[in-house]
Amino acid sequence: MGGNTFGKIFTVTTFGESHGAGVGCVLDGCPAGVPLTIETIERELSRRKPSGTSAASTTRREADIPEILSGVFEGQTLGTPIAILVRNQDQHSTDYDTLRDVYRPGHADWTWEAKFGRRDHRGGGRSSGRETVGRVAAGAVAKAYLAKFGVSIQGWASSIAGIEVPQDDGFDMDFAEKNPLRVPHREYAEKIRQKLEALRAEGDSAGGIVACSISGVAAGLGEPVFDKLDAVLAQAMLSIGAAKAVEFGSGFASADSVGSALNDQFEHPSGVLKRPAPPPVGNSGSPFRTPPAGKSLNTLCVPVKYATNNAGGMLGGISTGMPIEFRVAFKPVPSISKRQTTIDRKGDIRELSIEGRHDICIVPRAVSVVEAMSALVLADMMLFNSVNC
Amino acid sequence: MGGNTFGKIFTVTTFGESHGAGVGCVLDGCPAGVPLTIETIERELSRRKPSGTSAASTTRREADIPEILSGVFEGQTLGTPIAILVRNQDQHSTDYDTLRDVYRPGHADWTWEAKFGRRDHRGGGRSSGRETVGRVAAGAVAKAYLAKFGVSIQGWASSIAGIEVPQDDGFDMDFAEKNPLRVPHREYAEKIRQKLEALRAEGDSAGGIVACSISGVAAGLGEPVFDKLDAVLAQAMLSIGAAKAVEFGSGFASADSVGSALNDQFEHPSGVLKRPAPPPVGNSGSPFRTPPAGKSLNTLCVPVKYATNNAGGMLGGISTGMPIEFRVAFKPVPSISKRQTTIDRKGDIRELSIEGRHDICIVPRAVSVVEAMSALVLADMMLFNSVNC
Amino acid sequence: MGGNTFGKIFTVTTFGESHGAGVGCVLDGCPAGVPLTIETIERELSRRKPSGTSAASTTRREADIPEILSGVFEGQTLGTPIAILVRNQDQHSTDYDTLRDVYRPGHADWTWEAKFGRRDHRGGGRSSGRETVGRVAAGAVAKAYLAKFGVSIQGWASSIAGIEVPQDDGFDMDFAEKNPLRVPHREYAEKIRQKLEALRAEGDSAGGIVACSISGVAAGLGEPVFDKLDAVLAQAMLSIGAAKAVEFGSGFASADSVGSALNDQFEHPSGVLKRPAPPPVGNSGSPFRTPPAGKSLNTLCVPVKYATNNAGGMLGGISTGMPIEFRVAFKPVPSISKRQTTIDRKGDIRELSIEGRHDICIVPRAVSVVEAMSALVLADMMLFNSVNC
Amino acid sequence: MGGNTFGKIFTVTTFGESHGAGVGCVLDGCPAGVPLTIETIERELSRRKPSGTSAASTTRREADIPEILSGVFEGQTLGTPIAILVRNQDQHSTDYDTLRDVYRPGHADWTWEAKFGRRDHRGGGRSSGRETVGRVAAGAVAKAYLAKFGVSIQGWASSIAGIEVPQDDGFDMDFAEKNPLRVPHREYAEKIRQKLEALRAEGDSAGGIVACSISGVAAGLGEPVFDKLDAVLAQAMLSIGAAKAVEFGSGFASADSVGSALNDQFEHPSGVLKRPAPPPVGNSGSPFRTPPAGKSLNTLCVPVKYATNNAGGMLGGISTGMPIEFRVAFKPVPSISKRQTTIDRKGDIRELSIEGRHDICIVPRAVSVVEAMSALVLADMMLFNSVNC
Repeated sequence: MGGNTFGKIFTVTTFGESHGAGVGCVLDGCPAGVPLTIETIERELSRRKPSGTSAASTTRREADIPEILSGVFEGQTLGTPIAILVRNQDQHSTDYDTLRDVYRPGHADWTWEAKFGRRDHRGGGRSSGRETVGRVAAGAVAKAYLAKFGVSIQGWASSIAGIEVPQDDGFDMDFAEKNPLRVPHREYAEKIRQKLEALRAEGDSAGGIVACSISGVAAGLGEPVFDKLDAVLAQAMLSIGAAKAVEFGSGFASADSVGSALNDQFEHPSGVLKRPAPPPVGNSGSPFRTPPAGKSLNTLCVPVKYATNNAGGMLGGISTGMPIEFRVAFKPVPSISKRQTTIDRKGDIRELSIEGRHDICIVPRAVSVVEAMSALVLADMMLFNSVNC
Repeated sequence: MGGNTFGKIFTVTTFGESHGAGVGCVLDGCPAGVPLTIETIERELSRRKPSGTSAASTTRREADIPEILSGVFEGQTLGTPIAILVRNQDQHSTDYDTLRDVYRPGHADWTWEAKFGRRDHRGGGRSSGRETVGRVAAGAVAKAYLAKFGVSIQGWASSIAGIEVPQDDGFDMDFAEKNPLRVPHREYAEKIRQKLEALRAEGDSAGGIVACSISGVAAGLGEPVFDKLDAVLAQAMLSIGAAKAVEFGSGFASADSVGSALNDQFEHPSGVLKRPAPPPVGNSGSPFRTPPAGKSLNTLCVPVKYATNNAGGMLGGISTGMPIEFRVAFKPVPSISKRQTTIDRKGDIRELSIEGRHDICIVPRAVSVVEAMSALVLADMMLFNSVNC
Repeated sequence: MGGNTFGKIFTVTTFGESHGAGVGCVLDGCPAGVPLTIETIERELSRRKPSGTSAASTTRREADIPEILSGVFEGQTLGTPIAILVRNQDQHSTDYDTLRDVYRPGHADWTWEAKFGRRDHRGGGRSSGRETVGRVAAGAVAKAYLAKFGVSIQGWASSIAGIEVPQDDGFDMDFAEKNPLRVPHREYAEKIRQKLEALRAEGDSAGGIVACSISGVAAGLGEPVFDKLDAVLAQAMLSIGAAKAVEFGSGFASADSVGSALNDQFEHPSGVLKRPAPPPVGNSGSPFRTPPAGKSLNTLCVPVKYATNNAGGMLGGISTGMPIEFRVAFKPVPSISKRQTTIDRKGDIRELSIEGRHDICIVPRAVSVVEAMSALVLADMMLFNSVNC
Repeated sequence: MGGNTFGKIFTVTTFGESHGAGVGCVLDGCPAGVPLTIETIERELSRRKPSGTSAASTTRREADIPEILSGVFEGQTLGTPIAILVRNQDQHSTDYDTLRDVYRPGHADWTWEAKFGRRDHRGGGRSSGRETVGRVAAGAVAKAYLAKFGVSIQGWASSIAGIEVPQDDGFDMDFAEKNPLRVPHREYAEKIRQKLEALRAEGDSAGGIVACSISGVAAGLGEPVFDKLDAVLAQAMLSIGAAKAVEFGSGFASADSVGSALNDQFEHPSGVLKRPAPPPVGNSGSPFRTPPAGKSLNTLCVPVKYATNNAGGMLGGISTGMPIEFRVAFKPVPSISKRQTTIDRKGDIRELSIEGRHDICIVPRAVSVVEAMSALVLADMMLFNSVNC
């Protein structure tokens, strides 16, 4: 494996270069019987698409029409590999001819070439964010699987260009999906929009933070030791281009706290802290194993609550039943029209101003990728968990 | 696999509970011919050991005498699995009888039981930090392997109990290894010691940050897409108990920056930016493949430099040749003697004051674990890289 | 993973149902810089195709036009995933409507449904031999990689319908590729053809044996213990539909022999049995690691020879440098027009006569699949080997 | 991984050289709650041990006292890695000094050195059959797990030294476990004993065939495509030293048969061929998922029967519910006291007569290894299956 496969049981392999024939994925290990239509995948892909009118986005229009090549029959998954292909369109490949021999600062052009001895220079080739089309398509399938268990995943832009969205009265998660910046705050969405327009005018770009909250995951999910739930989520998040950091629950702030403040205390919900009677059929304790159809996993779980969630929903790498919460930092888009000095393959100095159509902040579009990777981690972990308890 | 194996080629499997017969590891995929003695392993284990006199540490004395059970013959690795066993000693198991039925806040007691339906409650069983003995032993082997290529790994405590060590004139990396707190600053080591003693007196505990710098890694290491070098390091770091966050290079600060400031600019070292002539033997471009014995990988690498290292030594998940730099946040030790309210297996409320011998800050001992996991990631990646280019 | 991926480093994932949109594969881990054109893949696919005029084959004509979706740029592999798609054509899906509710004897219809609770009944869905299109396409890439090292793989039909091809004067390997039955013997090809025509007239089908010889593999390839070269080849061969047995070297006959007869004795080629001087650069002994470009691996190998090859080219799961030789038994095609009694989904008895267009002996077409799987095993092992020595 | 790990979920890693400190295994992925005592492991190890009085065995006495280092608490598995160590004893290492520089014909001495550049020459090092101690110990755990589901595995010697045990009236499976040759036929056991004594007198050795039958496996087990149940069993069997061939069901004889004879016809057991009502809790069809405690998996399965079992219990790589049946051919022990000519590390010709204590036929001891590997395959597949349907 060249690192293009993720997961152990519910595994996704993505393929494709930015300006090749297409991008896509093969999903193996998805159980049979999950309802799946092309619309499910289209919906998620449209959330990832650049919004031509957004302050943050490229004006490249990507039709992104997915085709399911295999694994689905009469509206349900077969248990066989689900291959999904999205053909590349609107490929202004010649736009990139000038980049054939130049290494863009902040991009993977040079490191890629150091590793492989060659690269497809057109639009970044496989190091392009376009690779995430395959992730989002696969994530759509994972979400469909998770929906059976009442697990839902919600990401949003919690900070862009240094402007952090406050969790005050204006905070409105519904609004996040209604504006192309994915900012859950009408007032701050406008502030951020103005800041991004200003940066665009300067030929510069911005970074930001995607926050994510996952609800409906019962206690007991995750493999302790190396495959802790947070550890695998951390890999998933840092595998997204431009991600530079991740923190769970109180994260870096934990380091400055003390045990008596940070330990989440158990609550005592209505005197029912005993383990429930075991489910009637062959279940040695894990609520993930055989949830009744249509019921949230949480309803099966030992009804312990915690007063706080500094842990971000995980202790010892295993879910606590509280929402799983984390934040991912993304660096500014490295493609800027401001003039930079760089080198070319001959070692000569070159002045570079990247004029192509590019995002100036990846955060709004990264929301769907963070969610997709979360869904892939959870689906894989839930399947894995079902056998390990 | 139940998540107790790490790596793809240079793989380590750890085993053992805190108060069982022993802890250890089996390392598979280590090439033949690496010089290895028991002293190499003992040296790293001693760095992980609690220092009975340290402000941060438990007074539990762990002899931690490793035995190599296999894979080494006449002072060199055989290419076969290297099994290392450290028997448990000084097991005051009865100390833990009171914890059989009580879930400690901030620990994995309850989540572990939610997952497996049972646990070895003695000293946290397998969720104990004692599991990292196997990691550190394996990391010692990985370091021995990496030493052949001039790769060196240095971790230190960069912040403890809210006191951040400044990178001023007093900063002295040599001092880090000379004090049990692993603080590279004589003055701040004393400040931190005093703070920890105060917390101990209060029955409380502290968190902190381990910083790590890896030098000698040439450009071109890492698998783009899911197994980005930073992504795999992120998993490795978050797999350490009590780790809550990780950031690479400028990390979270990247999110607030702009592209023109954050992009590391290429430097032009003495006009030699051309790719070097390919090495004489069967090498399609990767400097990792066949480094001349005794030479740093860096010397083989295209001599590009960067003016800054905001990227933390990686772009697109592939090493740039600059030092790999990251920071890991650890939460305060959850075991505190301050009184806490918790529940027991019957769902009854219990008052809990954890009087056992425990660390009050894990950060100094975590330094060796951060290094060990880094070494395991790099050894695995270097072997993997050698075939993928 | 649902078992649709093969290999550890050079990994292939196949996808597709017989009558879905298409079949294909994603190959991950192929090194960069392997010359690859669509013609290379077409050539192998054409060897797998049914020959409409052959006594053994279905009259279904499969155009089998492959498209490389990714991973190849300007005629060379990029080191990124190589996705290959072959769209399904000539799908007489309605031919299969009668099979929706009936389980064909000797087929996987019922077991598939027992496992997944559903199936795509059209043409066997994913259990169809059409899945091997993806294998053969991937094998073509593996062969292109192996060609760089002088490894070549040759399979042939050594027995069909109970008629074994003798290794007498008429044995002519060149002839194997010139007749659709892949029989390397003009006289026996005709005998077999007549036998098959007779079976077709009776509405029956035939089995047979594919033999395979791999030359150019130096000594030292294979992972001892679980991933012995023969063990992995055995999995690869039994993973081909209808394969029922495999034997290496003297195979089953070994069981009846004695040690003094079966041990292959070393030969003493011209007094040069010493290990050669180690290659000049960083090589701890394995000839697979850094073969000079353009040279057969064998030329690097310790020049030991064996007088015989009862071992089939492997000892202790590691190649000896002698040709790797094995034979795979295939059962008769289960689809026969002879009337059979079976059951349907309701449990009612049904009379069944399978009139569709089907092969009556799979052996001639299986030759290319045996070769493809061999190539995938060897490519993966060679890459793996390069890091483990 | 250097090929010392087997399985995907229920994974075993073995370690150890024949004359190192010890041999053993680490088992990861075994569910929590499996009853396990040291006696369970001792019992299987004793079946593997050489019987000092047997015609076939070495006179080396191996105490083989296993120690469970981890993963078991209060008589049950914890869900954590189970490490088992068997220290080496009775190591007449100096017996092997003469073999330091000589390559024994038929052994892996030379190939091992070609691969790794070195070896532990004492008793074959890791290529010794002693490595199977770890497999048998792990297999004992797997059997304990399988016992919960009513799966049982029975191997026996079906042919030794060219003498095939007939399935006539004298065939008595109970007798197999009562004689050290594992021959299920009192009369033939004696015939074979005499033949082996004669071979021993001549300084020669014998091969043979182990047959194995697995009952209690319901229909629906196995991953189609690459991880077919028979494919994985084939790898498992060929991974045993000295194994040269494997066949399933009718095996090689299938190749000479015709479809109408080989297809196993469905039987119609008492009109109940409908799928049973789905189990009450969240089960999409697979009988492996949630078997009622204490019930055979078979009782959950669609009650289809087959009139014959030419398929050996698998179709399309998935179990049919019929017994899984296969045969494994082992070559004669290569260590013979008859004089052989070989070479040494200097390339000089050497006369060699291997006088050490060695088995002259491995088949009787291989029975327990065949069973152990079968158990490991089935346990892994059953866990894997539970998530993939």
